[in-house]
Amino acid sequence: MNKNSSNIMALVPNNSNKRETVCIFGTGDFGTSLGHKIIQSGYPVVFGSRSTEPSSLVPKDAEVLSHAEASQKAAIIIIAIQRQHYNFLTPLAEILHGKILVDISNNRKINQYPESNAEYLAQLVPGAKIVKAFNTVSAWALLSGMLDASQQVFVCGDDMEAKQKVMDIVRALGLNPLDKGSLLAAQEIENYPLQLFPMWKFPILLSLGLTAFFFFYCLIRDIIYPYVYEKEDFSFFIAISIPNRICPTLALILLALVYLPGVLAAIIQLYRGTKYRRFPVWLDKWMLCRKQLGLVALAFASLHVLYTLVIPIRSFVRWRIGNQIVSQALNNRTEPLNNTNAWLSDSYLALGILGFFLFVVLGITSLPSVSNTVNWREFRFVQSKLGYLTLILCTAHVLVYGGKRFLSPSSYRWYLPSTYMLSLIIPCIVLVVKFVLIFPCLEKPLTQIRQGWERNPQYPEQSNYIINKSAV
Amino acid sequence: MNKNSSNIMALVPNNSNKRETVCIFGTGDFGTSLGHKIIQSGYPVVFGSRSTEPSSLVPKDAEVLSHAEASQKAAIIIIAIQRQHYNFLTPLAEILHGKILVDISNNRKINQYPESNAEYLAQLVPGAKIVKAFNTVSAWALLSGMLDASQQVFVCGDDMEAKQKVMDIVRALGLNPLDKGSLLAAQEIENYPLQLFPMWKFPILLSLGLTAFFFFYCLIRDIIYPYVYEKEDFSFFIAISIPNRICPTLALILLALVYLPGVLAAIIQLYRGTKYRRFPVWLDKWMLCRKQLGLVALAFASLHVLYTLVIPIRSFVRWRIGNQIVSQALNNRTEPLNNTNAWLSDSYLALGILGFFLFVVLGITSLPSVSNTVNWREFRFVQSKLGYLTLILCTAHVLVYGGKRFLSPSSYRWYLPSTYMLSLIIPCIVLVVKFVLIFPCLEKPLTQIRQGWERNPQYPEQSNYIINKSAV
Amino acid sequence: MNKNSSNIMALVPNNSNKRETVCIFGTGDFGTSLGHKIIQSGYPVVFGSRSTEPSSLVPKDAEVLSHAEASQKAAIIIIAIQRQHYNFLTPLAEILHGKILVDISNNRKINQYPESNAEYLAQLVPGAKIVKAFNTVSAWALLSGMLDASQQVFVCGDDMEAKQKVMDIVRALGLNPLDKGSLLAAQEIENYPLQLFPMWKFPILLSLGLTAFFFFYCLIRDIIYPYVYEKEDFSFFIAISIPNRICPTLALILLALVYLPGVLAAIIQLYRGTKYRRFPVWLDKWMLCRKQLGLVALAFASLHVLYTLVIPIRSFVRWRIGNQIVSQALNNRTEPLNNTNAWLSDSYLALGILGFFLFVVLGITSLPSVSNTVNWREFRFVQSKLGYLTLILCTAHVLVYGGKRFLSPSSYRWYLPSTYMLSLIIPCIVLVVKFVLIFPCLEKPLTQIRQGWERNPQYPEQSNYIINKSAV
Repeated sequence: MNKNSSNIMALVPNNSNKRETVCIFGTGDFGTSLGHKIIQSGYPVVFGSRSTEPSSLVPKDAEVLSHAEASQKAAIIIIAIQRQHYNFLTPLAEILHGKILVDISNNRKINQYPESNAEYLAQLVPGAKIVKAFNTVSAWALLSGMLDASQQVFVCGDDMEAKQKVMDIVRALGLNPLDKGSLLAAQEIENYPLQLFPMWKFPILLSLGLTAFFFFYCLIRDIIYPYVYEKEDFSFFIAISIPNRICPTLALILLALVYLPGVLAAIIQLYRGTKYRRFPVWLDKWMLCRKQLGLVALAFASLHVLYTLVIPIRSFVRWRIGNQIVSQALNNRTEPLNNTNAWLSDSYLALGILGFFLFVVLGITSLPSVSNTVNWREFRFVQSKLGYLTLILCTAHVLVYGGKRFLSPSSYRWYLPSTYMLSLIIPCIVLVVKFVLIFPCLEKPLTQIRQGWERNPQYPEQSNYIINKSAV
Repeated sequence: MNKNSSNIMALVPNNSNKRETVCIFGTGDFGTSLGHKIIQSGYPVVFGSRSTEPSSLVPKDAEVLSHAEASQKAAIIIIAIQRQHYNFLTPLAEILHGKILVDISNNRKINQYPESNAEYLAQLVPGAKIVKAFNTVSAWALLSGMLDASQQVFVCGDDMEAKQKVMDIVRALGLNPLDKGSLLAAQEIENYPLQLFPMWKFPILLSLGLTAFFFFYCLIRDIIYPYVYEKEDFSFFIAISIPNRICPTLALILLALVYLPGVLAAIIQLYRGTKYRRFPVWLDKWMLCRKQLGLVALAFASLHVLYTLVIPIRSFVRWRIGNQIVSQALNNRTEPLNNTNAWLSDSYLALGILGFFLFVVLGITSLPSVSNTVNWREFRFVQSKLGYLTLILCTAHVLVYGGKRFLSPSSYRWYLPSTYMLSLIIPCIVLVVKFVLIFPCLEKPLTQIRQGWERNPQYPEQSNYIINKSAV
Repeated sequence: MNKNSSNIMALVPNNSNKRETVCIFGTGDFGTSLGHKIIQSGYPVVFGSRSTEPSSLVPKDAEVLSHAEASQKAAIIIIAIQRQHYNFLTPLAEILHGKILVDISNNRKINQYPESNAEYLAQLVPGAKIVKAFNTVSAWALLSGMLDASQQVFVCGDDMEAKQKVMDIVRALGLNPLDKGSLLAAQEIENYPLQLFPMWKFPILLSLGLTAFFFFYCLIRDIIYPYVYEKEDFSFFIAISIPNRICPTLALILLALVYLPGVLAAIIQLYRGTKYRRFPVWLDKWMLCRKQLGLVALAFASLHVLYTLVIPIRSFVRWRIGNQIVSQALNNRTEPLNNTNAWLSDSYLALGILGFFLFVVLGITSLPSVSNTVNWREFRFVQSKLGYLTLILCTAHVLVYGGKRFLSPSSYRWYLPSTYMLSLIIPCIVLVVKFVLIFPCLEKPLTQIRQGWERNPQYPEQSNYIINKSAV
């Protein structure tokens, strides 16, 4: 629902008398920010604090009492205190019996403690109903209304009714509660706000490394080589020409790297004769970031398209074409159409357009809201069938682009082949191996293995040992 | 929440002692794959099997017992057995009384049996709480971590608490449970994984048929005709020029077909004088796949844009323009600017850009996550007002593109008009009829009919008969 | 789940005997439309009406009884009557005791009554369980299957079990229920369908105003000026050339306006020395529509890209370039490459491409389904870091585009500077102020203030007064 309307409601609560009192332990920044917002949403708020002198941060409408007094005024108590000070709650255990304690704490590092803060709280106050919530929201966002990203509040807890009451508060604040199940999910919820695109690290580092490599490679071939041999200054190639060599190269390599782990996995399974043994860790990690690899590849492909489409607007290109035509005119001749060139030029453009189009379709399908509406069969159709078609079209695009130049000696400057030749290595390997794997003599056993068949089922202990080791 | 973090949690369960034992009946592929994954998520698992000899597939951590023994160890029993063998559960009915039975089965065909597998199970074991879940997940995906698409697990069942417990297991496995209501939804859930883009079939078949027709049409006009009369080989037109005729033609025709059923429905309602009679089945089906028709039209429009933007890079176009300029230079003259041509060229490009831009906006609005954030009024505004504006702009784009050529005899090769003329037929019909329907003498009764007014309300039985027939 | 399958299910209910009877009060358009649909989904329906003569609208399968009789046949009663007639329910209060009353009503205006219709109903029939639902669905959509946008049905109510039963009906109709919490959310739910893009009003009005201003500005500079001084008719510039000046100008200005309120907020906080005082209302509103401002800016940037890429296809541009080359050829000379021009041309194109690319990435991140998968830290990284990088790249794009022309007197026609100069004013101010705010002497106190520190905490009453005033 629209943020606006909920905001209007939050500012003009009509029925504030209906809302239950909420108690907040702690008068620090997040406690008071949350208190402000909860008061605005129509809930009476009482603060529990060591010193009952009103702090400047505490909203005026809210009472400040001792922890014991405050907790008696409310059924829901939000613990806005850091984990290391939780032990002050132990003496209060009796008063807190049956109350709903909301743990909103975060840690500094992922998996900082053996158990989650919420579970630690549950151990300290065994009679209370613990609910984890609000830790993904920032105090600054709460007060400033910058709620674009963080409208989702993960909630977990073992008591259904307690969870419902906390989710009602979340909704009243204009946020979307998302039930993550029992308190066991607290660790995951506490780790969540500490992440910074964990799945994207490998694809982005890899593409940065490859970009740097191909940049210097092109620098040598396209700028230093002509400068040394022809004394021509093409340094402005850095702006468009070289990026437009790097982008398609990276797009094709990264797209092939999306499909390489699947091919490797098939080979490993065929070799082992079972699907019940774990893949090597590097392969597992690689498979988990294929989507991100594919999206980075799509980003490079999109840049390649833009760089290519501006070619006719470039002042250098206009100058070069103009000069060609002028010299033709001065030589008094019109050239006949070279039909082979027309075919090659149109074909590689058409293949590139179709490949890019399918690539964008794949990208749209990987949007969370779209991929949630397709079933497993449809997903496999899109990602596997359409994905390989994309790879084939893009590889063909580069092959036809190379066209007659593959064997021309002028393509090898200082014995360095063009980047497009380098970009073809991995895609061709993937496509050839995949093609081999389609032969019935290999595909049949592979399908059987994936349906649970094992070639050497006589050693059950071993295969289980390997799986269970990772479960410990 | 990020798949990564949930995966880390799944591999390192801290509190596995807290989780309830889960029993799995059946030691086949899906049963054991699910068992592996559930053990990794920290649940103790016990298998129930006809033969208690440990199969090689069963994880080592899991006991294998007889069905009766295994079911006594757990409150939740996952039935990983095919429907045709369910009757072995009848003698166990007493032991299974009060247990949660999770039906995870799928069928081979849509609506294979009169009742869903889960409802059949409920009939066989009347004392148990049946929950349908996990049928949309593939065993291979569970073990390999290929969970990009299938993170959503549909859950349904009549017992709220049983459903909650199953949803907790789903969440612990790193998947997203989606409550689909009571057990009546089981049939729908069982049909779901068998579909392969059912709504897309008609739009894609239609566009493939039209593509084939227009391909041969253009082949005759643009390649065979000049080859026969001018002995020129333009076969390379197949790569770009002909696709760039087919794509805009199909985009415009399909876009018009999105709005044609609405216009037909209005005519039918005006003629009948009531909205309470069902439309013919073909019209109903057509109306239900309008979104898909529109998205296919958008795909063709996008291809048309790409094909058009690469025109200046094509080697054929560079050759043709170069030759024109050279012959101008050789003839010693510069041409004055033809103002009409400049107007026509710029207008049709501008109309095309605006039409395509609105078309993309329409496409973005149809993304599930976007369309869920707009209300009915906003959706009608975008899809109806902006949609018709798009159709008007795109039709005008083609009309202006045609420009002075409509009546030129050179456009008719072998009496075949250009494809752009054919593409205008349906859009013009839709726009003219829609324009007529806006006249007050027609719009007023139509609005009344859509608000429930009936012209001949004296025959209630008849109109009801028609609606109810389809409800039987 | 796919709409199709649920539709099939709705038309062929197998187990209609299992569904509970639903009672509908009122035989108007929406009541009977909903009744038709509920019957199709397998529920027996009974209508309650003042006159028990069967109306033509009532489905034949449904009985029509008096209100009292009808309500005794069902546990769930849908009130399909307008709010002003609710008082007829008061005498029925005893019969309705313990029943689930579903309020589906809407109002004509936002916040028309002090309390929501559902809360008014709860006051009239205090013993009943009130659930708000179905008000976001249109009667016409229900019958015609036009459910693309409105599949989401907001449900709220104080009784969990009653809400569950209503959500089951919603699901059976093929719609997605969304629990919005307690009955307090009813006001928000009732206001929802009355909105028409409330957050988009300001950005769109602002951009329309700016578009009009820059259109006339360009008209004077680019068409009237050359017509007056050179008697040349460039009126066709209206189609592409002038839009291609307006679009980049607006894109840059609107993008800068996205970041201006954040900069102003930082200055205000530094000046006040606290974050606990509300910003002025205009700043609050501005901050809430930044996302929409950014998306409108992205729309203009996309149009600018399209207008730029078609440049080489324009008949005017082809004529101009052709003539240039012809006159070069006639003058018998080839020009040497101007290296500075090549650098400038390639740089501004490359900066534009990168800026647009990042802008599109920002746009994709703001899709609801994508922004829900990133946490607060990731969101800030994308929107703040990448956002400023986009602004820097786009500003640099315009600066390099200006290049050597900034001081050329020919850029000032009638003392009017080019539009690109005007477009640079706000972005440069934002970037300079942001750059100043990064200095440690300003950033350190700002960070402290945002973490809750106050410069003058001695006046707690005042700061609270301001916040609480807005909460009243």
